[in-house]
Amino acid sequence: GTDLGIISSKAIPQDDGTYRVTGTKIFITYGEHDMTENIVHLVLAKTPGSPEGTKGITMFLVPKYLPIDLESGDLGNASHDLMENHNGVTCAGSEEKMGIHASPTCVMNFDNSIGWRVGDLHTGMKLMFQMMNQERLATGIMGLGLAEIAYQNSLAWAKDRRQGRDLKGPKDPNESADNILVHPDVRRMLLESKVNNEGCRALAAWTGILLDQMHSDDPEEAEYASSLVALFTPIVKAHFTDVACETASTCMQVMGGAGYCTEYGVEQFYRDVRISKIWEGTNGVQALDLAGRKITQNMGKNLRHLMWPLTEFIEENRDIPEMSEFNKPLHQGVRGLQQLTLLLIAEGQANPHFLAAGATDYCRYFGNVLLAYMWAKIAKTAIKKKGDPFYDAKLGSARFFFKRIFPETVSLAAKIQSGHKSVMEFPTEMF
Amino acid sequence: GTDLGIISSKAIPQDDGTYRVTGTKIFITYGEHDMTENIVHLVLAKTPGSPEGTKGITMFLVPKYLPIDLESGDLGNASHDLMENHNGVTCAGSEEKMGIHASPTCVMNFDNSIGWRVGDLHTGMKLMFQMMNQERLATGIMGLGLAEIAYQNSLAWAKDRRQGRDLKGPKDPNESADNILVHPDVRRMLLESKVNNEGCRALAAWTGILLDQMHSDDPEEAEYASSLVALFTPIVKAHFTDVACETASTCMQVMGGAGYCTEYGVEQFYRDVRISKIWEGTNGVQALDLAGRKITQNMGKNLRHLMWPLTEFIEENRDIPEMSEFNKPLHQGVRGLQQLTLLLIAEGQANPHFLAAGATDYCRYFGNVLLAYMWAKIAKTAIKKKGDPFYDAKLGSARFFFKRIFPETVSLAAKIQSGHKSVMEFPTEMF
Repeated sequence: GTDLGIISSKAIPQDDGTYRVTGTKIFITYGEHDMTENIVHLVLAKTPGSPEGTKGITMFLVPKYLPIDLESGDLGNASHDLMENHNGVTCAGSEEKMGIHASPTCVMNFDNSIGWRVGDLHTGMKLMFQMMNQERLATGIMGLGLAEIAYQNSLAWAKDRRQGRDLKGPKDPNESADNILVHPDVRRMLLESKVNNEGCRALAAWTGILLDQMHSDDPEEAEYASSLVALFTPIVKAHFTDVACETASTCMQVMGGAGYCTEYGVEQFYRDVRISKIWEGTNGVQALDLAGRKITQNMGKNLRHLMWPLTEFIEENRDIPEMSEFNKPLHQGVRGLQQLTLLLIAEGQANPHFLAAGATDYCRYFGNVLLAYMWAKIAKTAIKKKGDPFYDAKLGSARFFFKRIFPETVSLAAKIQSGHKSVMEFPTEMF
Repeated sequence: GTDLGIISSKAIPQDDGTYRVTGTKIFITYGEHDMTENIVHLVLAKTPGSPEGTKGITMFLVPKYLPIDLESGDLGNASHDLMENHNGVTCAGSEEKMGIHASPTCVMNFDNSIGWRVGDLHTGMKLMFQMMNQERLATGIMGLGLAEIAYQNSLAWAKDRRQGRDLKGPKDPNESADNILVHPDVRRMLLESKVNNEGCRALAAWTGILLDQMHSDDPEEAEYASSLVALFTPIVKAHFTDVACETASTCMQVMGGAGYCTEYGVEQFYRDVRISKIWEGTNGVQALDLAGRKITQNMGKNLRHLMWPLTEFIEENRDIPEMSEFNKPLHQGVRGLQQLTLLLIAEGQANPHFLAAGATDYCRYFGNVLLAYMWAKIAKTAIKKKGDPFYDAKLGSARFFFKRIFPETVSLAAKIQSGHKSVMEFPTEMF
């Protein structure tokens, strides 16, 4: 679960330097399968006398089968009974889930299993987060990928499907009906999907570049990139997947009854994508990571590394008339983000409930501001290449973003500003 | 499909006054089953020489088996081969769907089947809408019901589940963790669900009263009730089910990984409730019905019948200090609704795309205003009974509604006002 401080798995040190690991882990993706000859688990557990809470957690490497040769991992003669190598690692069951049916979700038992310590004692959380941060970015991309294939399916459907007429008069008078792309509400749904997908893809590409820059020889560049990746990780995880689930639903809606039927595929994407809001830390946990940790981390450097280029961009484009429809709302959004950040930090110091009550809406606000930055940058390029259909369409997408998606930030701000009282003062026994 | 004007089912009149009906119907809920000895279908079809479009549609009654006695419906000796009575009505298949697996969705073939006309020629649409309007209200209630059971499940889970600590310090220091109701974001999710459910339930109750009043002996009351039911039907259908799908998702989120697993039930509600946004007219169709038809219908009387008591309520409570936190935002919302209505009507006359591009957001805005009215009325009663825990909780719910749900109207207004251009000017070939 989210609260790793209360894990009860134990690791008892042995004279030969190994440990004996005992405990149960749930929700272990691919915890058991027969696609490889061995499975090596990274397991978090506590050694005797460790500090309470997450500070006492250590990481161990526990294979399903013990190799006869530790260097090569050789399991011995393939024809002999592997049970001789068995390390007490068993799958006690797998979950029946709503989706991701190609991914076994296992309950794993470790029964006095031999394990090797990974890293120093009590560094398990730090090591786990190396993996976790990658997984969070990957989960955001998983959401985006499913949202994109949902969009492509529903677009193909919309191009074929004929129902009703353009409200301004038949578009295809020789057909019994126009195709549904003539309907403003269908276009709205498809554009919401397309424009959110493309905006997220741009932010994903930027994040990918930053992941490379983290390994730069230039320490300043590496520090800058690390700061932004730390800041973006909860947003890529939470905002991408929140939006992706909405997009899968919107694309199903475009297809009407067919969207709900297995035959047409989108219902699977709708089910599969839903896990992305939950695993690798729920989106609520991401929002707390952003609002409670990432914006104040490194003395606020993460945020400053974002705000410098952002405000510079806004300044540069202030007097370019063609940019004003994008630059003005971006400017308002950034100013709003700064105010909300100060509000959460100031109020949050006195009362952490204030910060936590606004965290999810803040994360969504932040995500929208980053997408607004992406779309303003895309628009800037597209304006220079006006007349080219590809870039003209990008300009149309940017316009749609600022007219029909970005305005949600206004409501989010109001909800954040309303504070924690309506949330915390509701009597618990009256839920 | 939505566009009934293009149906191709035919009904050929016979000398004995019956018709021979031939055609295929898809998405027929319970089109075939063996729970009753006969199934009687109401079928829309066109007689030869009928006008084009929906005006040429007539309704027919077509039984699966022909009774030997039309008066009693008697199928004859139960032991004889029913195939002798078969009326050419066959189920060609049933859809594999994401949910509602207890509800067979059939493809029905009618092959020269004997049918009896229901009502006059070419009145099929009107007759169908008698059924359809009931189904739309019922679908809204279906959504609400599934949202409520999802809430109850996730609440029960939240009460049991211990993870992390209250940010202000342990609530249950003797336990290894506090239960998750201490977390502001969990409370936010549960309150969003609970408060939307209760608001919808209040509006459903009012609609139920109006359905009775439609049959009043007092023609003025009957006309008033009919107007409001006409106005509320698309909102109950679309807003209840939109919110219900969000609620099912929110409740799944409260439960984390367990919410995604079949064992805990909520994933079924999440799948089942999704159809409610689609069937009996998609929610996009509801929004068009509201914005394009119901608000101008009867010379605008539907809307006036709502606005009179609403503005009276606001006026009555203007100077009651305890009501101002509810009455003020309600007043703003109603004023906004009036402005948006005028905007859609005025712009929509010149350009129907403007109206259609804003319809979905308008329907959601309208739904929120009706829920705001419900919550302000509930608050009014609760204030009088202050000190009673039940009513104090209602006051807390009303507060949550106005602080954390109703602010979304501000964004919706901005999206509606942005008009149709960002939606319609996007080049179709660049989707």
